[in-house]
Amino acid sequence: MPQSQAPSQRTTVKRTPQRANYESDIIYQILDEGLVCHVGFIADGQPFVIPTAYGRIDDTLYIHGSPASRMLRSLQQGIDVCVTVTLIDGLVLARSAFHHSMNYRSVVIFGKATLVEDAEQKLTALQAFTEHVILGRWKEVRSPNHHELARTIVLSLPLTEASAKIRTGAPIDDEVDYQIPVWAGEIPLKLTAAMPINDPQLHPDIEVPATVRNYTRPQKHY
Amino acid sequence: MPQSQAPSQRTTVKRTPQRANYESDIIYQILDEGLVCHVGFIADGQPFVIPTAYGRIDDTLYIHGSPASRMLRSLQQGIDVCVTVTLIDGLVLARSAFHHSMNYRSVVIFGKATLVEDAEQKLTALQAFTEHVILGRWKEVRSPNHHELARTIVLSLPLTEASAKIRTGAPIDDEVDYQIPVWAGEIPLKLTAAMPINDPQLHPDIEVPATVRNYTRPQKHY
Repeated sequence: MPQSQAPSQRTTVKRTPQRANYESDIIYQILDEGLVCHVGFIADGQPFVIPTAYGRIDDTLYIHGSPASRMLRSLQQGIDVCVTVTLIDGLVLARSAFHHSMNYRSVVIFGKATLVEDAEQKLTALQAFTEHVILGRWKEVRSPNHHELARTIVLSLPLTEASAKIRTGAPIDDEVDYQIPVWAGEIPLKLTAAMPINDPQLHPDIEVPATVRNYTRPQKHY
Repeated sequence: MPQSQAPSQRTTVKRTPQRANYESDIIYQILDEGLVCHVGFIADGQPFVIPTAYGRIDDTLYIHGSPASRMLRSLQQGIDVCVTVTLIDGLVLARSAFHHSMNYRSVVIFGKATLVEDAEQKLTALQAFTEHVILGRWKEVRSPNHHELARTIVLSLPLTEASAKIRTGAPIDDEVDYQIPVWAGEIPLKLTAAMPINDPQLHPDIEVPATVRNYTRPQKHY
């Protein structure tokens, strides 16, 4: 059953609140379809926004990276972060320039990231990263070894302060503008996969597996 | 001719510097292909990352919104911002989980945004927004009227402190892993347009114009 999260002061959507949504299953679905999040944090009094991959397990978002990363070194100190995931669903073409818009789904998460130190939880999170990118891949490839685990920092961020914002559907023009003789509507946009490209060093006997051949992002189900 | 920007301390790419690029034409091309930027700023000591549309004219990025927007109200006070645009070009599937990656192009801009007060410059920026989303649309639709101009805040951000980061190509596995009998390579990803959807109130005589019918994002040319 969908759970609803009571919005905190900072997650309450101020602009166009009719587009806001605080239901966990909507938030999770957007996070699961996205590939990259934008992590916002403050270092030396300066805002940074860094794109990075992520994974989700239940009500926790995981990000990872190298111990040499400025972002990960900053974040594991327990500072405030804002993580945003945005899916572009379409262009909304109105009869006036002013009412042009985009259909999108976005999630904004506030919180503090925590270092994942438990070895088993870390490995589970790394599995979630790989499976987030391409379902079924984890069991096809070599698992991380001890050395690789040591070279990877994993941070967890609770999804307790999260909100979604969604716009769908047709343009909304001013009443008088519906008479303007110009096409109006939506151009749907979607991140789509093209034909897989073999690694130049791929052994010629190896075929493209179904996980790769049939690749799509998880679809929205509402 | 491509101009090269001397990287400032904060735009110097620290991690995987071999992926860094400071040439203006590379930076502009990524900005022109992207549809949404993620604007990072600090309000009440808290980082925010908000997705928004944008436009570019020469070495200036423009964002816009309602005077009621918390982001625009914060930004026009001349605070530091970090604006990031990310294009996802493909999934990089290695033979080990550890070496999985993504092909991407991203631009990170640091600076302070300035309110555009000149009416003509504001209108030119609004034209750039519309043309950025769909080339040729501006002259097809009704231009902003006086009331709409007053209801729109436009901010400009110089592209002087910007850097690009790009990953392309095949996975890079550990030497011993090339023997693992699993498919490796790249799944190219692209934001593609589906069939346009007519506005339910569209007059039946109006056909889909070429600007909409042949819609694509500007392609990379390198």
